[in-house]
Amino acid sequence: MAALITLFCGTLFMFTTRGHSKEVKIREGYIIVTFGWIFMALSGTLPYVISQSIPGFTNAFFETMSGYTTTGASILNDIEVIPEGILFWRSLTHWIGGMGIIVLAIAILPLLGIGGMQLFSAESPGPSADKLKPRIRDTAKRLWLIYVSYTLAETILLWAAGMSFFDAINHSFSTLSTGGFSTKNASMAFWNDNPMIQYIVILFMFLAGSNFVLSYFAFKGKVRRVLEDDEFKWYFMFVAVFTIISAVVVYYNADFGLSSIDHPLVSGKAEGAFRHSLFQVLTVITTTGFVSADFTLWTPFLTIFYFGMFFLGGSAGSTAGGVKVMRHIIMIRNGIIEFKRTLHPNAILPVRFNKKSIRKEIVFNILGFFILYMLSFIIGSIGLAALGLDFETAIGGAASSLGNIGPAFGGLSPVNNFDMLPPFGKWWCSFLMLIGRLELFTVLIILTPFFWRNR
Amino acid sequence: MAALITLFCGTLFMFTTRGHSKEVKIREGYIIVTFGWIFMALSGTLPYVISQSIPGFTNAFFETMSGYTTTGASILNDIEVIPEGILFWRSLTHWIGGMGIIVLAIAILPLLGIGGMQLFSAESPGPSADKLKPRIRDTAKRLWLIYVSYTLAETILLWAAGMSFFDAINHSFSTLSTGGFSTKNASMAFWNDNPMIQYIVILFMFLAGSNFVLSYFAFKGKVRRVLEDDEFKWYFMFVAVFTIISAVVVYYNADFGLSSIDHPLVSGKAEGAFRHSLFQVLTVITTTGFVSADFTLWTPFLTIFYFGMFFLGGSAGSTAGGVKVMRHIIMIRNGIIEFKRTLHPNAILPVRFNKKSIRKEIVFNILGFFILYMLSFIIGSIGLAALGLDFETAIGGAASSLGNIGPAFGGLSPVNNFDMLPPFGKWWCSFLMLIGRLELFTVLIILTPFFWRNR
Repeated sequence: MAALITLFCGTLFMFTTRGHSKEVKIREGYIIVTFGWIFMALSGTLPYVISQSIPGFTNAFFETMSGYTTTGASILNDIEVIPEGILFWRSLTHWIGGMGIIVLAIAILPLLGIGGMQLFSAESPGPSADKLKPRIRDTAKRLWLIYVSYTLAETILLWAAGMSFFDAINHSFSTLSTGGFSTKNASMAFWNDNPMIQYIVILFMFLAGSNFVLSYFAFKGKVRRVLEDDEFKWYFMFVAVFTIISAVVVYYNADFGLSSIDHPLVSGKAEGAFRHSLFQVLTVITTTGFVSADFTLWTPFLTIFYFGMFFLGGSAGSTAGGVKVMRHIIMIRNGIIEFKRTLHPNAILPVRFNKKSIRKEIVFNILGFFILYMLSFIIGSIGLAALGLDFETAIGGAASSLGNIGPAFGGLSPVNNFDMLPPFGKWWCSFLMLIGRLELFTVLIILTPFFWRNR
Repeated sequence: MAALITLFCGTLFMFTTRGHSKEVKIREGYIIVTFGWIFMALSGTLPYVISQSIPGFTNAFFETMSGYTTTGASILNDIEVIPEGILFWRSLTHWIGGMGIIVLAIAILPLLGIGGMQLFSAESPGPSADKLKPRIRDTAKRLWLIYVSYTLAETILLWAAGMSFFDAINHSFSTLSTGGFSTKNASMAFWNDNPMIQYIVILFMFLAGSNFVLSYFAFKGKVRRVLEDDEFKWYFMFVAVFTIISAVVVYYNADFGLSSIDHPLVSGKAEGAFRHSLFQVLTVITTTGFVSADFTLWTPFLTIFYFGMFFLGGSAGSTAGGVKVMRHIIMIRNGIIEFKRTLHPNAILPVRFNKKSIRKEIVFNILGFFILYMLSFIIGSIGLAALGLDFETAIGGAASSLGNIGPAFGGLSPVNNFDMLPPFGKWWCSFLMLIGRLELFTVLIILTPFFWRNR
């Protein structure tokens, strides 16, 4: 029924807009991307609404937006009573959303020139060794093939490691899209007695959070290109360093935050500290949001430490959300150069990325993006606090929604869910998820008065 | 005794460094500013240490650094048992620090080219109507005269309104330097039964948080220059808008957060909501940190709302700390232009400030400054959280120290003090106060390896 209704509306749109010019202008690009996503979210609510498995339109919209934006925040209090068909649709929204993001990141956002995404343009002007294939359609096809292959591989591996086939395919959908919806109330903590399953998910979270173009190179045998990639090196380093810090602190100070999840730790304490730290660091950095343990129950230090990671994000060109490693690299390098410029005001010191100098406009774009991100976070937090949420919950909820992560802190910690929010809060978080997913500018520009002027 | 020891050390320094070139190079500028401040803080501990009124060197250093950086965070649990001479010295560190900051902001930082302070250069190259007087010494003298006059005026007004002369002069020192030390345990809440005193302090907080150059123009009769100043307009607007929001919310939702301060509200509820909101908004924006009520006990919305204000700061060229209104204006304007640039990639759209186009390098400086500020805040929070402080306390303590505000949230709320921190936390906060006060770059550049290379 949902498919028929969507098909009918789509056909209606197609016929009513016939005869218009097929050339898309830059302004129309923003409108298409933003409203396309909103219409997707609206049509995606139909299975929930028709089957009545999610009560209320607000809840259904929140769950669908969380799905398509690959956030993974849920309003379901008991996931396991939902029919399997609906749960499959729920995971599928992640997977479709992830596909959309790959095209967006590789093909559309670079053309719109948003927040430094030009660096990843497949259509970059001039001779560039980095272009995959000159045409968007081909690029998208190749990356989708990788996306589908990874999904199949993870499904088979999870199935072989002891998951049911249904759970395996759903969790693969959630992993590759860096979404985070699970078919179990305990999320991945359900398999705390099967470390192999968790290591498989860890591997694919890592892949999903890295640039898909690099996977393409790896399959082509160009492994050196992957290892020399600036963003990949930093991404790997961040994961490694943060995991070590987290594991050491957990090992010496904390239990595993499993008390409220009720699943025992079968292996030794050292392996557990390492695995849960690696899992949680990846789930936050790649903005997946699976739960293997409740990091908000670890030490106060780790709570802030993980909160800091909320602002990192995965690689550009992956399905991950957040600020992105690429932008942090350029901000850090620009920061260092800013210090040097202070000492040598007349020296010309360009910021480099992958051994090439970055045009100053792009560095500007990236700094502007980060400041807009922080501003959205602050306004997002104030919006949630206005509903009466406490400090941690409001700040965590806004950062988590904006970064498309899923779990947050306090009342929205990994073992809780977003159903505790009043209706306005659910719409507010849906909005934050949307702007975070579409790299802020795409949505926010439509809200400016001058976007509609000077046509 | 303290004066003699300091004089002796100073003379020693003077004689041992005799014969060196008197020309100061740019690198030496950073070293002089940073270490000058540290030596000031070290010599400032002597009265506390010699009189044994503050136990322990760590505590004495924290209190002095908090004084000279005009932060106003205290480790004293009972202020009223301290001898008056020592309390006077404590307020005087604020006042001396404030004098230092005026010179720094108007004369030294612009020369070093830090975080957009070039805009306020008294020595700006080319014909500029904004230059006060060509020479640093004259500029400093004129602004100090205003600073001293304001201090005298406030002292007399407070005395006339019913404060003792001792309290009046101490609070004037704290107000004009946007410091926040009080001679009473209840801070300004001690005078909650005397609204006139609080309104006088409100007036002078507002003046201390505005650019002293504007006060100079006002005294010269050039009132239009003041009213047309971009930063002054926005500063006034921020104070007005935030006060209205805060007052409305307090009036309808909250008591006045006075329960733990134990002083009654003599006037009506509306006047109380207005006065306490205005007082608290100004105390946070100007980074003074006086307490008239405990805003952390107001609503959860206001808690986050005030926390957001922690990142605003007063005007450049004032004694206030934090990010500064000027930088926010330029970031906001650059953000709007960034949106426009996205639509018209080839248009040349300069950022304007006081009707002049700002060079792109200066906008760059300012964006870089803000990102470094946020990074320092995150690392500062993680450092405090590592000591076992909870989320709110760690985040609030770091933001408050970095912004030279004083009170924070949770365990460091306005009615608590910083004595609850372990020794490392006191040193950590002292460091944050220092880098925040000296506009980050001045101190942090000394910690970079390349500062010491290529001499």
